[in-house]
Amino acid sequence: MARRFDIADLVERARRGEPLAVSRLLSLVDSEASQQLREVASALAQHTGHAHVVGLTGPPGVGKSTTTSALVTALRAQGRRVGVLAVDPSSPFSGGALLGDRVRMAEHATDDGVFIRSMAARGHLGGLAWATPQALRVLDAAGCDVVLIETVGVGQSEIEVVALADTTVVLLAPGAGDGVQAAKAGILEVADVFVVNKADRDGAAQTVRDLRHMLSYGGEERGWRIPVVRTIAARGEGIDDVLTALDEHRAWLDSSGERERGRLARAAAEIEAITLAEVRARIGDVRGVGGLPELAKRVVAGDIDPYAAADELASGLG
Amino acid sequence: MARRFDIADLVERARRGEPLAVSRLLSLVDSEASQQLREVASALAQHTGHAHVVGLTGPPGVGKSTTTSALVTALRAQGRRVGVLAVDPSSPFSGGALLGDRVRMAEHATDDGVFIRSMAARGHLGGLAWATPQALRVLDAAGCDVVLIETVGVGQSEIEVVALADTTVVLLAPGAGDGVQAAKAGILEVADVFVVNKADRDGAAQTVRDLRHMLSYGGEERGWRIPVVRTIAARGEGIDDVLTALDEHRAWLDSSGERERGRLARAAAEIEAITLAEVRARIGDVRGVGGLPELAKRVVAGDIDPYAAADELASGLG
Repeated sequence: MARRFDIADLVERARRGEPLAVSRLLSLVDSEASQQLREVASALAQHTGHAHVVGLTGPPGVGKSTTTSALVTALRAQGRRVGVLAVDPSSPFSGGALLGDRVRMAEHATDDGVFIRSMAARGHLGGLAWATPQALRVLDAAGCDVVLIETVGVGQSEIEVVALADTTVVLLAPGAGDGVQAAKAGILEVADVFVVNKADRDGAAQTVRDLRHMLSYGGEERGWRIPVVRTIAARGEGIDDVLTALDEHRAWLDSSGERERGRLARAAAEIEAITLAEVRARIGDVRGVGGLPELAKRVVAGDIDPYAAADELASGLG
Repeated sequence: MARRFDIADLVERARRGEPLAVSRLLSLVDSEASQQLREVASALAQHTGHAHVVGLTGPPGVGKSTTTSALVTALRAQGRRVGVLAVDPSSPFSGGALLGDRVRMAEHATDDGVFIRSMAARGHLGGLAWATPQALRVLDAAGCDVVLIETVGVGQSEIEVVALADTTVVLLAPGAGDGVQAAKAGILEVADVFVVNKADRDGAAQTVRDLRHMLSYGGEERGWRIPVVRTIAARGEGIDDVLTALDEHRAWLDSSGERERGRLARAAAEIEAITLAEVRARIGDVRGVGGLPELAKRVVAGDIDPYAAADELASGLG
């Protein structure tokens, strides 16, 4: 059995930035068995909306973790509180230590202004859609100015993850397999900011040119000119330019109304997903004559068609 | 606007095997805009459950179309009525001529005992889950003794398609890229019958050995010994052995109760999918205070958490 916590107290302490309280809340929202998920969501509701949620994605090997770590360092140098969600759709493992569970993040392990969490995929509700929005709310309520969502590994959920972000950064790197040609079209299309990392390598200028060429066809259609920033994340070079691009995008989102529009669309999608999951759960709870096994029997027997059975099922959900 | 047909009359004529009536019913159930889908489903309900539904799948290039055509020829030689659904999850095109819309099926085009239909993917309800079960019911009601579902192309929906079948045939062929190693594990696991086609080619014996070796680990666990049949479908060789394997599997399904169990599970999944789709449609219909856009606004404003919003939404669905 999961321990029961005083949620209101945890949220209060998380809002003051206590790492242990943040860690416990993240564990509560990331547990499928959590009985307290609703209570946590309710207690967090009025304390969110501050954080700038930034998704980082790109093909394997472009330096996402290194870039994330460099961004954390730069944001901390500006005195901003930072959350990191490292999401691995291909991993069944979740949770992990809040402070520095990954080697490259070790330098931030003793920094009370940085919260780091690994999230695994979930089997329901389209994978990550379930736990990640709640984890974002926890980090938001904990006073994070910026939350970085980094996708680890490759998976179909990549696009889903970045769909949770206000601003999506797509990282590319020059060289075989990592250039513009190799990137999935779907990923290129979600970019608000392009970062060409490992910019000291052969082919970096070509990758930048390819991106600019691609962007010349429609890159400004929503009123935001998608920038292409060159970085050498391992040396911290260009990272301040990335931060500038992120801040400019946030300012544009606010002034254009796009941030509000995005948040509304994400909230609507989340409410719908929760509703459908609960309908599905209730379907599983209905027993007897109006229940799914009985209705399936009647369909197989030819007494009723599946649409009429669905009507009966729906009417029994109360 | 779609024409309205007298459904009861169409079903009556389809049951007598009139190709035009079968064709019209297949079009009605395969149209997303069909207002008469429910009426068709209702009229078909009591006339189904006879056909043996056989799914054929396997990697590209193994000869699925050739094998399907050879099976049709052999089944017709036995005087059995046959339906063929060629399902292409990667194609946006559906419908097509009922009688011989594909070159390799041309020899069956003038045979009133064969019904052939191409089905495309659908964007909702997990792709094919929507139209294909209804098309199966049409062919079943039309008196088909066997309905072959052939997956065309490669797609995630392959497994979904074979999940609709009583009996799943997995085709392999010897040679680079087509052997046991190349086949997706998920496909190997759904096989009730293996067919090694192009059995005159180098490596056929090895492919058969690989399969038998694999099957020696658990191939009999459900009480059915999965057979491995060698064919040269282009010359019709081995096709009678495939038919024998199919008939034996059908007999085992009936005697073991597995056919009933499978049909119940498929009916339950279909009823649930229809119910969820209708809940989603109703969510889209709710306007005003209890509607999704208003609830999303309140979530973004922090007045309410998404779980409470989902509760409100559900209570407004009536």
